Amino acid sequence: MKQLTLCGAAAQSELRIDRGLLGNAAAQIAQVFSPSRVHIVTDSNVAPLYLDKLAAQFDLPVSSTILPAGEEYKRLSSVERIYHDLLAAGMTRKDLVIALGGGVTGDITGFAAATFLRGVSLCQIPTTLLAQVDSSVGGKTGVDLPEGKNLVGAFYQPGLVLIDPNVLDTLPKETFTDGMAEVVKYGYIANPEILRMVQAPGYRAHIEDIIYECVKIKRDVVAQDEHDTGLRMILNFGHTVGHAAEKLGNYTELTHGQAVAIGMVAAMRLSNALGAPRDLVPELVTLLKALGLPTDLPYDREAIFGALLSDKKKFGATVNFILVRNPGQADIVPLAAEQLHTLIVNL
Amino acid sequence: MKQLTLCGAAAQSELRIDRGLLGNAAAQIAQVFSPSRVHIVTDSNVAPLYLDKLAAQFDLPVSSTILPAGEEYKRLSSVERIYHDLLAAGMTRKDLVIALGGGVTGDITGFAAATFLRGVSLCQIPTTLLAQVDSSVGGKTGVDLPEGKNLVGAFYQPGLVLIDPNVLDTLPKETFTDGMAEVVKYGYIANPEILRMVQAPGYRAHIEDIIYECVKIKRDVVAQDEHDTGLRMILNFGHTVGHAAEKLGNYTELTHGQAVAIGMVAAMRLSNALGAPRDLVPELVTLLKALGLPTDLPYDREAIFGALLSDKKKFGATVNFILVRNPGQADIVPLAAEQLHTLIVNL
Repeated sequence: MKQLTLCGAAAQSELRIDRGLLGNAAAQIAQVFSPSRVHIVTDSNVAPLYLDKLAAQFDLPVSSTILPAGEEYKRLSSVERIYHDLLAAGMTRKDLVIALGGGVTGDITGFAAATFLRGVSLCQIPTTLLAQVDSSVGGKTGVDLPEGKNLVGAFYQPGLVLIDPNVLDTLPKETFTDGMAEVVKYGYIANPEILRMVQAPGYRAHIEDIIYECVKIKRDVVAQDEHDTGLRMILNFGHTVGHAAEKLGNYTELTHGQAVAIGMVAAMRLSNALGAPRDLVPELVTLLKALGLPTDLPYDREAIFGALLSDKKKFGATVNFILVRNPGQADIVPLAAEQLHTLIVNL
Repeated sequence: MKQLTLCGAAAQSELRIDRGLLGNAAAQIAQVFSPSRVHIVTDSNVAPLYLDKLAAQFDLPVSSTILPAGEEYKRLSSVERIYHDLLAAGMTRKDLVIALGGGVTGDITGFAAATFLRGVSLCQIPTTLLAQVDSSVGGKTGVDLPEGKNLVGAFYQPGLVLIDPNVLDTLPKETFTDGMAEVVKYGYIANPEILRMVQAPGYRAHIEDIIYECVKIKRDVVAQDEHDTGLRMILNFGHTVGHAAEKLGNYTELTHGQAVAIGMVAAMRLSNALGAPRDLVPELVTLLKALGLPTDLPYDREAIFGALLSDKKKFGATVNFILVRNPGQADIVPLAAEQLHTLIVNL
C-alpha cells in the first residue's frame, strides 16, 4: 500500500492507494475514525456495483443516500436530501460520512459533511480515475447554482481517502480516458516522468504508480496553498479554456476530461505565443490522441472568450492563466482581458 | 477603542469595541480588507436604522440583501437568496460581505460568506447585545432545518467584528435584557467581576467595559477550542435546559435570553444536587430578576427531558452538562441519560 499525508490548516488527510482497498475499507477506516454509525452517499451508477460490498464490512449501523447519477444533481437540493437522511439516521458529530463514487458524488457529499452540524468526519472512496487523481484529494467540496458551476462550497479535508485502482476496471472506457487528461496535466505542470509512464505500452498495468505520482503532486501543491489563493492555481492548467468549452457545450457535448485535453492544447499554444523555448504542442497532441482524447477546440473563439470572461468573474480583474513553457514547470501568468482576447481569437 | 485578536486555525479575527464605531466602519474595514466591492446583508428591522448610514461610507460599489426579520427566516432559502444577490452584484473571492444585524442575520450571512465561492471575506457588525457578546465572535455560522435549529453551518472566522455599544440604545428594552442573560453567563463561567459590574447601579453607562470582558472570555475560550470539541462547551452554561425550554415554547414563548436565564437557574440547581460547596441559586435568581429576566421553568419536567434528549442526538450517548459550583469556574460533566432524567424531574 502507498500512503501519503496531507496536513491542512484545520485537519489532516490520510491518502492510501492499494489494489483491493475497497474490500478492506472498514479496517482502514477503523484506523482513522471511531464512529458509532456510518452513512454512505453514492449514486445510482455506483450503488449496484459497490454499496453492499462496502456496507457489509461494518459492525456498526450503516445508512445510505443514493443520489441520481449526473452533474445536474450537483445542486443544493441534493445536499438538503443528504442532511435529512443524516438526521433520520441519527448521525451525530462523532459519526462518519463516506462518499463512494466519482467527482460529483465526492463534491456534494464533501459539502454536506463540511456543513452538517458544522462538520462531521468524512472519508472519500473515489471510484473514477478523475476523482482518484484529482477531486477526492485536497478538500475542495461544492455544488453548482443555476448561475454556474461550483459557486458554493467549502474547503474541508477528508480525514481519509481510500483509492482502489481495481475499481477502475469496472468503468466504461470513456470514463477512464477522461481521467487520463488530468494525469497528463500533472505530467506537464510538475513531473514529466508521468508523461513517460503514460507513453509506455500497457501503462494501465502500472496505473497504481501513476495515480500515486499524481496524488503526491496534488498533496504537495495543496499543502502549500490549501485555500487556493496562489500556487494551487497551477492545477488549473487546461481548465480556463476547458471550462469555457464545457460551458459552450452545455456540459453535455464534452466531458470534463475532454474539455481539459482541449484546454491544455489551447494553453500550450498560448505558451508558445508568450515565448516558450520550444513548441510543446505536437508532443502534447500526439499523447492526447494516443490516449483517445480530443485536441481541437470545436467552438468559435469569440464565444470561448465570452464564456471565459463570465467564468473569470469569480477571480477579479485579470485572468490568471496557467502556462507550461517547459514540461514539469507551470507558470501563473496574469493576463488582462484585451491581451487574452487577442490570444484566444488567434488560437 | 478596545481591541482583541482571535487567532483561529485558518484565519484570525480582529475584534474592535468602541462607541460610535458604526459611523466609522468603512475606515476600520479599510485597515483589514481591500475589497473591490461590498455587499451588506441586514434585515427589515435594522435596514431602516443603519443600512444607509453604513453604505454611504464606502467609495466602492455597495449592494445589499434585506432579509425579512425573524428566526423563521434562518433557513437555507435565505442563504440561497444571498448567493443570488452576491452573483448579481458581481462579487468575487476578493470582495467583502458585511453582516449588519442581530444573531440571526450574523449566522445566516456568516454561512453564506463561508460557502460562497468556498469562502469570501466577512465583517460582522452586530446590532444586538446578544450578538455583540456572543454570536458575532468565534466563527460559528449556520441555519436551521425543518428538523431543528443550527443543524447546518460552518466554523468561519469573520476577519473583523465591529461592536458599537451606541446602537444598543435603539433596541427595544426586551432585546437588551435578552443579551444580559449571556452577560450573566460569562460572569458565572469565567469572571465573577462581570457579576459585580452588572449589579452596580447605572451599569448600562459602563456597557462598553462589560461587553469587552465578555468578548475577551469568548475570545480566550474559542482560541483554545475553535471547533467546539471540548472547552468551548462551557459557553453552553444554561443552554442545555434553555434549548429544551425554547423548543417546548415553539421558539415563540421564550426569547433566547429568557430561556438561557431559566436554564442557568436549572443548571445551578443541578450543580447543587451534584455537590456544589454552597448554594448559588438565590444570588443568581436575585440578579436575573433585577435584570428583568425569568427564573422559573414553565414546562413539565418530563417534557423538558424529552426535548433535551432529542437535542442531544447531535452530541452522542451522554449529555455534557455545564455546571458552575464556584462563580467563575465551569465544569463539563458528562451525564448518562438515566442520571439526567432523575435530576431533571426533581428540578
